[in-house]
Amino acid sequence: MSTIKRRPGRRPGSADTRGEILAAARRVFAEMGFDKATVRGIAREAQVDPALVHHYFDTKEGIFAEALRLPLNPELVVSTLLEGPREGIGERLVRLILKVTAVPETREPMLALIRSAMTHDHAASMFRDFVTNALLYRVADALGVPHLRIEAAFSQMFGVLMARYVLKLEPMAGADPEELVELLAPTIQRYFTE
Amino acid sequence: MSTIKRRPGRRPGSADTRGEILAAARRVFAEMGFDKATVRGIAREAQVDPALVHHYFDTKEGIFAEALRLPLNPELVVSTLLEGPREGIGERLVRLILKVTAVPETREPMLALIRSAMTHDHAASMFRDFVTNALLYRVADALGVPHLRIEAAFSQMFGVLMARYVLKLEPMAGADPEELVELLAPTIQRYFTE
Repeated sequence: MSTIKRRPGRRPGSADTRGEILAAARRVFAEMGFDKATVRGIAREAQVDPALVHHYFDTKEGIFAEALRLPLNPELVVSTLLEGPREGIGERLVRLILKVTAVPETREPMLALIRSAMTHDHAASMFRDFVTNALLYRVADALGVPHLRIEAAFSQMFGVLMARYVLKLEPMAGADPEELVELLAPTIQRYFTE
Repeated sequence: MSTIKRRPGRRPGSADTRGEILAAARRVFAEMGFDKATVRGIAREAQVDPALVHHYFDTKEGIFAEALRLPLNPELVVSTLLEGPREGIGERLVRLILKVTAVPETREPMLALIRSAMTHDHAASMFRDFVTNALLYRVADALGVPHLRIEAAFSQMFGVLMARYVLKLEPMAGADPEELVELLAPTIQRYFTE
């Protein structure tokens, strides 16, 4: 199948093209997992030029985040952590994660993905590859933090989101975000700096 | 249905009776949830005297832990935390949780319960009631720790178990327990003492 072949009647760069690339990306990620999927393969599946995929989404990580409607674009997390003083990383990370998960429209698709990962090995493998390669290892390596420590930080925030939004433990579920920032930021900060 | 009525041919106190009480408890917990279930109701369902239920399991929490084959008996957690110096709580808790979840035979039923809680509201509600009322609030109140802080500690360890055993993030999944104790104990200690 040629990468330049297009379905008749579709203009390159239309909103429709973007949606079709995302739909193609979902099929490719579901079939191949995150690590083995490529921008070229997604372009082929969408019957568009790879340059167009890059034009819309920059990176494979970006496509994945949008295809699965993840509220956490890795680029945003990495830039949020790297910009600003090192001693404020814990606070910035906790605040960012609580902010992007506060809105049901962005939180629910992420919870759906996590639920799949909890109950299906294939989804767990895809989630694992994305979380580690696109997010955790990149942040860890950019900051010189051992991978185990960044996974301890991930575990803390993952557990908080589960307690708050899935298990709905009180008082965690109803706690004010700023109270949680105060409580959790020193934990995250310690993993990043000690 | 009388609480003293028994099926013919069964001796009180036999291994069979114990198993039938657990089977009855599973039905009662599934139907009523943890909070509304009572020892008396479980005894009625098992067609035995409530004293026999107490004889085998002491408390409703104890029945629940055994009925769902939970590796974490609340009594064990509470006594482990309360015995010994306060400044060693973080280390004792992390070590206990890693130890009881290290064995697949005790870990898998717990993961099964968590998977149910992640995907079914009713299971989530039962898990929530048990975790908070039988475990977290009791420990928190015995030690004078605010409920939110103990839920932050729970979130850390819950996240670690998910990362290690469900998502299987490396290096977390293969990490030596003692390395994890060293990494996580200060986090838990801070929630309990600061």
